[in-house]
Amino acid sequence: MSTLRQLGERELIRRLTPKLPLRPDVILGTGDDCAIVRGENGFDLLYTTDAVIEGRHFIRESTPELIGRKAVARALSDIAAMGGEPVHLLVNLVANPNETLERIERVYDGLSRMCAQHGVSVIGGDTASGIALELHIFLTGRVPSGRALRRQGAKIDDVIYVTGSLGGSIRGKHFEFQPRLAEGRWLREENFANCMIDLSDGLATDLRHIVVASDVSAIIDATRIPVSPDVAQLESVRSPLDHALLDGEDFELLFTVPDCRQSEFEAVWAKIFDLPVTAIGRIGRGPPNIQIIDALGLTTDLPDAGFEHFRA
Amino acid sequence: MSTLRQLGERELIRRLTPKLPLRPDVILGTGDDCAIVRGENGFDLLYTTDAVIEGRHFIRESTPELIGRKAVARALSDIAAMGGEPVHLLVNLVANPNETLERIERVYDGLSRMCAQHGVSVIGGDTASGIALELHIFLTGRVPSGRALRRQGAKIDDVIYVTGSLGGSIRGKHFEFQPRLAEGRWLREENFANCMIDLSDGLATDLRHIVVASDVSAIIDATRIPVSPDVAQLESVRSPLDHALLDGEDFELLFTVPDCRQSEFEAVWAKIFDLPVTAIGRIGRGPPNIQIIDALGLTTDLPDAGFEHFRA
Repeated sequence: MSTLRQLGERELIRRLTPKLPLRPDVILGTGDDCAIVRGENGFDLLYTTDAVIEGRHFIRESTPELIGRKAVARALSDIAAMGGEPVHLLVNLVANPNETLERIERVYDGLSRMCAQHGVSVIGGDTASGIALELHIFLTGRVPSGRALRRQGAKIDDVIYVTGSLGGSIRGKHFEFQPRLAEGRWLREENFANCMIDLSDGLATDLRHIVVASDVSAIIDATRIPVSPDVAQLESVRSPLDHALLDGEDFELLFTVPDCRQSEFEAVWAKIFDLPVTAIGRIGRGPPNIQIIDALGLTTDLPDAGFEHFRA
Repeated sequence: MSTLRQLGERELIRRLTPKLPLRPDVILGTGDDCAIVRGENGFDLLYTTDAVIEGRHFIRESTPELIGRKAVARALSDIAAMGGEPVHLLVNLVANPNETLERIERVYDGLSRMCAQHGVSVIGGDTASGIALELHIFLTGRVPSGRALRRQGAKIDDVIYVTGSLGGSIRGKHFEFQPRLAEGRWLREENFANCMIDLSDGLATDLRHIVVASDVSAIIDATRIPVSPDVAQLESVRSPLDHALLDGEDFELLFTVPDCRQSEFEAVWAKIFDLPVTAIGRIGRGPPNIQIIDALGLTTDLPDAGFEHFRA
């Protein structure tokens, strides 16, 4: 009898999802950053859920405002990854009955401020008593009909891009990251990206989602991956590249742009955004696989070993 | 410094909600069974969230299929209480890494079956590791524009009705209840009800939500409150009436009908539904207050003491 620890999150989701019935207005169910439902008047609706849990996404000593902020920002990042605009939010609070009102009010202050900054209304939720503090966020969004950017859609010869820099988010970025809503929306409006995902589980894992969904391969250049300055502060025995590939919670955007538009894309991006964008590799023919090429030109297969819930 | 236990759920929600910003398309935010958002093509959208948590809504030994069923049925009951039709569902799963796949698959079987029975699509969710098993449900629904039944709207001289029978749901009904979707929808379509709520926290608490939201008072007749046969099986020192007033998780509908339509309503209901409906009292002038009249004709104020989360 398998436990969830043996199985891992990806396999668990794979086992549970095929059994679930779908209505005809569902454009995309489980398996991407958001679900997409056919809306009206030229818009599709986006739905996403995210949880932050004490002991996993924050600790008892974390600044309460940052806990609330992070819960919202994670869900906003899912909407950003589809090129969408966030709209309404509901929040389920689980808290210990001995929790102080002050801490919870500060959590909600962080949550409210993040919502207000992005024009999101908090319209409901539920509260229940439990052991540790948890926030479960349900966020809705919208995107012009048929225009949501998905994990599938990468084409052979596409250039692979990532925003910002990667790794070491445990130093503070996992709380204070900016969800890339403006960038995601612009990529969708300008029609530059063929596919997109946000980096929640680490580049290695999230790029694998793209190659599997798109049925392509990818080759990335180890020397071009933008390593965050946070990584140097970690005093880790692992290499900086390892952190950039495997650390979770970067919440940057990973997307592909057609080869023929590479120079146009980079020129226009640089005019609009201060945020760096880096070409880190290229899409190739399937089957789904990721190779990494090092400074000496040696190529190795990237093992399938990013962050997964339930596993140790 | 207050704890949540001292404060109680209602006061906690009151403290947290006024700070939250609202978009102009929000018809109703926190404080009812569902949030209502202005939709298009003649429909408003309903959003509700609900959580079931091990140790509170079920125990370790509960039949897994019933846990999944209950999680969905609770949220369906919120949609029923607005007279709406349920549409899409997302589910956040929190589970211990040592949990078996078999138990989780059985939970999802119960969840899927309940969704399929009511035409609901499961379109997404999230999974995370935690201590105890939890399901957080996010359910969408729809209702013709402006027609959702709310807690507010009770008018002086309205007759107060409740479906089914109350109390003792711990004997099994808290798992196996039927959300009153057909009845809720019919009440909305036929325009009989001025206001409605589902009984999740007990008649005393949920009727108080109606009188507060509607700024009216209520008088209910102790001899007319339909006590569930389950109550007699409880071997409790509390009176049957006490159980019918204070036990949670009945998931029946509580609503008011204009005085002048009472006999018409009762006659039509009896032709359509097998489920009993009982007139238990009458709405009076505010301020918000509930009185109960006993078999001897003595009237007492009903204390404000139904089930609340966080409190003992």
